[in-house]
Amino acid sequence: MKPEAAHQADDDAAARRRVVVDLGMRSYDILIGPGLVDAAGEEIARRLPGVRAAVVTDETVAGLHLDRLSIALRAAGIDHSTVVLPAGEPTKSFEHLTRVVDAVLAQRLERDDAVIALGGGVVGDLAGFASAIARRGMRFVQMPTTLLAQVDSSVGGKTGINSPRGKNLIGAFHQPALVLADTALLDTLSPREFAAGYAEIVKYGLIDRPEFFDWLERSREAIFAGGPERAEAIRQSCEAKAAVVAVDEREHAGRALLNLGHTFGHALEAAVGYDSRRLVHGEGVAIGMTLAYRFSTELGLCPAADAGRGEAHLRAAGLPTRIAEIPGGPLSTAQLMTGIAQDKKVKRGHLTFILTRGIGQAFVESDVAPAAVEAFLDRELAR
Amino acid sequence: MKPEAAHQADDDAAARRRVVVDLGMRSYDILIGPGLVDAAGEEIARRLPGVRAAVVTDETVAGLHLDRLSIALRAAGIDHSTVVLPAGEPTKSFEHLTRVVDAVLAQRLERDDAVIALGGGVVGDLAGFASAIARRGMRFVQMPTTLLAQVDSSVGGKTGINSPRGKNLIGAFHQPALVLADTALLDTLSPREFAAGYAEIVKYGLIDRPEFFDWLERSREAIFAGGPERAEAIRQSCEAKAAVVAVDEREHAGRALLNLGHTFGHALEAAVGYDSRRLVHGEGVAIGMTLAYRFSTELGLCPAADAGRGEAHLRAAGLPTRIAEIPGGPLSTAQLMTGIAQDKKVKRGHLTFILTRGIGQAFVESDVAPAAVEAFLDRELAR
Repeated sequence: MKPEAAHQADDDAAARRRVVVDLGMRSYDILIGPGLVDAAGEEIARRLPGVRAAVVTDETVAGLHLDRLSIALRAAGIDHSTVVLPAGEPTKSFEHLTRVVDAVLAQRLERDDAVIALGGGVVGDLAGFASAIARRGMRFVQMPTTLLAQVDSSVGGKTGINSPRGKNLIGAFHQPALVLADTALLDTLSPREFAAGYAEIVKYGLIDRPEFFDWLERSREAIFAGGPERAEAIRQSCEAKAAVVAVDEREHAGRALLNLGHTFGHALEAAVGYDSRRLVHGEGVAIGMTLAYRFSTELGLCPAADAGRGEAHLRAAGLPTRIAEIPGGPLSTAQLMTGIAQDKKVKRGHLTFILTRGIGQAFVESDVAPAAVEAFLDRELAR
Repeated sequence: MKPEAAHQADDDAAARRRVVVDLGMRSYDILIGPGLVDAAGEEIARRLPGVRAAVVTDETVAGLHLDRLSIALRAAGIDHSTVVLPAGEPTKSFEHLTRVVDAVLAQRLERDDAVIALGGGVVGDLAGFASAIARRGMRFVQMPTTLLAQVDSSVGGKTGINSPRGKNLIGAFHQPALVLADTALLDTLSPREFAAGYAEIVKYGLIDRPEFFDWLERSREAIFAGGPERAEAIRQSCEAKAAVVAVDEREHAGRALLNLGHTFGHALEAAVGYDSRRLVHGEGVAIGMTLAYRFSTELGLCPAADAGRGEAHLRAAGLPTRIAEIPGGPLSTAQLMTGIAQDKKVKRGHLTFILTRGIGQAFVESDVAPAAVEAFLDRELAR
């Protein structure tokens, strides 16, 4: 008879899902399921034989999961170093980028070796960017530990750091060689953090997958409780993002749809000075998507019932949907318009928004009049 | 009748050569000839309508050519800022990279806007890297002002900075949208700097273009004197490099041939601490190519006459070909072996060298025994 642990590993492997991101020669797997931290050495060694690695993580995640990952890598014979960064958004800086790149070079890693990011979006973005520029591009393995990172930032190859002039203004497109999304790690997230990641799952339904949105309405409680629905929701989200990325690796028109709710959302985040006590990214996206739907309704594009349905689902998931819900004092239209004008999706002065004709019917509108947005925000701020 | 200046511009345009780097959607032109600084505004505006730009240059080049470029850009309606950096290799640092990226972001340039590099390899590598990472990739225009940059670093998309752990260890592959090589600018170079650039021209003949090498033997004096042979030599060099880059954008086996003489050359540069008073890059390559040919002869691969012919041509061009010619005290085999082991072309511990079977018959050998290199260098140091 197999010992208990081996049975658990077999069960985990059976519960695993796989999404292929189709980028020709640079195609890669996303594995989703419980137990992938313990299986990481094996999965990496099978795909990248002989690889050496630098594991990049933050202090919070290191305390929770780093020892298990190190044991798994050692068991598979993967020689590795670790770099533990401070947790939090300020880590996405030139200073910490330099530190990670230097650690990689100090270890004499070569182009075929890998940087492994174990953490949320901050760690993934920073470590991915370091792997993009060290030796002009090394291999990169994403091990996202938050729901947001599992369904969004770890898929698609966007990496980067912040500039004093704005978030994510410095970076590279650099595809991972493998993504390992261990769904068991999500049990350590706070309810607020889990809900924030869920906003990005809802986004895929609201963009162009109405049946997925229907399924989310039915499955939300099961997803929050854990179990097979959770892994399935993550798989569908990765599938949705992978489909877009395969068509449009470098963010032209097709990929722009992924920004549903993000122009408003980024403006809100900027307006609160990226203070996560007031607003985290997923919450900004939840309010931003609601605004995008309501703005579309105002413009006569989207039935009011669809905007209401989207908002109701986000609220049921515990997410904010109105600007006035953001704690810490009121925001102004002028503040938000400044943020919108600075958003990097601005192209030659015109405002580009993702608008919609209903649930799952989003589209890119690249010629939105600033005055219309202003008038809309004036009304929304009073809601 | 046209005024004198207009006649000059017509003559310049007639003398211009064009090389197309074929990279599908990202194909770009290299224009070569006198007067391209004055024609830059027009050539850029035609290809990138509505573009805004940040011109990056160094103090030396700014004094010589920046005013003329600014006038040309303004005449074509191209709104631009300028960033003037200290001249010299230490500028290829994180510190100056941050400065250039910040200037680009401060100007609110967008992805379709351009960074224009006016300078030699240092400026081109740094500005190109900044354009690769600002907003995850902007347009980039190379205006190389040295012979070395015109025939080598400005073509191919390699950009980057130095790390305290080695040269060019941090960077990106980022193709320019246009290269403007104004051959009239080369008149301001010192004879030593011109010769150093010429070493890279000779390299293309020695790699796989025996007829080009024959032509160089006949045309060397005319190339050094200026005139149509100079532009033709640059064109052929760009053509040679473009052909390799089109097949192998990211430095796999095909592109490796461009490293002829570079593993030895880099080790020599490292051994003198990158002191340009002792050795500049092109001189390192001249000695390195001679070593690669002589090593190939020792291994029974290359006729001694071919090695001698390569060396004689480099010497006639005023270039060093022996390690002992490097001023400032003798170097040791141990020093050079350390440099060779650290060279980024090392793959999984094996030494990779570009060897040759004769003039224009270079090939990649990825399994060279370190002991053979050591014994060869012992003998060469005594030559």
